Amino acid sequence: MVDSCRSCSNCRVGNEQYCMTGFVGTYAGTHKYKHCQEYNEQGGNDTYGGYSQSIVVDKNYVLHVPENLDIRGVAPLLCAGVTTYSPLINFNLRPYHKFAVAGLGGLGHMGVKFGVAFGAHTTVISRGTSKKESALSDLKADAFIDITNPDEVKAAGKSFDFILNTISADHDINAYLRLLKTDGKMIMVGLSEKPIPTYPHPLVENRRTLGGSNIGSIRETQEMLDFCGRKNIVSDVEVIAADQINEAYARTLKSDVKYRFVIDTATF
Amino acid sequence: MVDSCRSCSNCRVGNEQYCMTGFVGTYAGTHKYKHCQEYNEQGGNDTYGGYSQSIVVDKNYVLHVPENLDIRGVAPLLCAGVTTYSPLINFNLRPYHKFAVAGLGGLGHMGVKFGVAFGAHTTVISRGTSKKESALSDLKADAFIDITNPDEVKAAGKSFDFILNTISADHDINAYLRLLKTDGKMIMVGLSEKPIPTYPHPLVENRRTLGGSNIGSIRETQEMLDFCGRKNIVSDVEVIAADQINEAYARTLKSDVKYRFVIDTATF
Repeated sequence: MVDSCRSCSNCRVGNEQYCMTGFVGTYAGTHKYKHCQEYNEQGGNDTYGGYSQSIVVDKNYVLHVPENLDIRGVAPLLCAGVTTYSPLINFNLRPYHKFAVAGLGGLGHMGVKFGVAFGAHTTVISRGTSKKESALSDLKADAFIDITNPDEVKAAGKSFDFILNTISADHDINAYLRLLKTDGKMIMVGLSEKPIPTYPHPLVENRRTLGGSNIGSIRETQEMLDFCGRKNIVSDVEVIAADQINEAYARTLKSDVKYRFVIDTATF
Repeated sequence: MVDSCRSCSNCRVGNEQYCMTGFVGTYAGTHKYKHCQEYNEQGGNDTYGGYSQSIVVDKNYVLHVPENLDIRGVAPLLCAGVTTYSPLINFNLRPYHKFAVAGLGGLGHMGVKFGVAFGAHTTVISRGTSKKESALSDLKADAFIDITNPDEVKAAGKSFDFILNTISADHDINAYLRLLKTDGKMIMVGLSEKPIPTYPHPLVENRRTLGGSNIGSIRETQEMLDFCGRKNIVSDVEVIAADQINEAYARTLKSDVKYRFVIDTATF
């Protein structure tokens, strides 16, 4: 996000990510300067974000990266990082909570790092066991549940206070809701291409809530970066050169990356 | 609710309505005294609730009715009253909120009374305009929206902080979610016979939440009764004799009642 209208009720309270007229994405966006009529008359200007080697941005949308962090692992913090950090703050993940991250990809692995760093008991919920070793050994999750294993689902019962749902593939959302205890909440940050149906019944029967969250505000993004600096948290990345983009894209579609590709713009 | 297990994690914190083994309903329930093995061996005992002229209940499940209230209008407070009061407390309806009640039946009319009594700006959302006069004149709602009127829906925009959804008929839940502002919440208390599909997209795009709530705890029910006593709130009822039950049931199915039938047990 590199701009927003700056005047709507959401922008005024620092929720630029929910700008009523839509924020300007760092890439694939169109600059708009509502306070500058002349600029608008020129028809605006596309944003290329991380695919550009430099970008002009209003100072209110610029962030400071802690100097102790490896810049390669910082890049995805501005997206996967804040997208998972923001809901944990806004929906009040507590250190005494039983917390679970559903789905272990680019978003999910950041959710696990934050859950552990926030002091919560952190479980990874995945389909199958292929990601179990990574979850427990690499990411230091406290537990792992294979949602396709009825014994593990039954043993978990209604035990979670908070589930961060990062799954973008089609899935039965109700099976995850039923893992929440009374007053538990599940927050969606992954969006499938198709809508995912859910039902009020698992909500009513235990006063559960289902929420959604979209990236984070500029203030929160800086707060997240500062937190990562203090805790030495970065995204796990694989750095590629510009000529490897097509190959990396194909691997991304197969979820064959731990956990984000980062393009070295010096190779453009 | 006249009993619960009294020992599960929910009962221990006063959430008897979410008892892990299921609470004992005032009617159509089966008494269970888990602490009394001999009683269990006798096979328990059915509850008839309001259809009985007397009932034996553990003292922890007995409530005190404020003496200034008309007992006829108090009867539905123990169900429709607490079912609408409890979510407003637990999900934090604030006096500065724009609040809406979706559906104006037995539950909905109590939701309107509580919204007004809590000091919130209270709107009734209904299908068509047949209930507009009752909502505004009788129940003192601040506004009325006909959800089938695109102009009224467009004018409302994303304006509500809190929607209490009392609709038990099939409906497009997403149309209601989209009336919520950023961080707005919709709480379901009505349950259709069929599941109602919803989608994460309207949740993610404005950090909205969808929750559910089921009656209320004993402590909350007493709190609600005391509040009603202080504010002189009762349910609007039509009192019938026992021999009018079949007629009343037929009218209930047609939503032809303002807003609850109460049976005078002296006529049994």
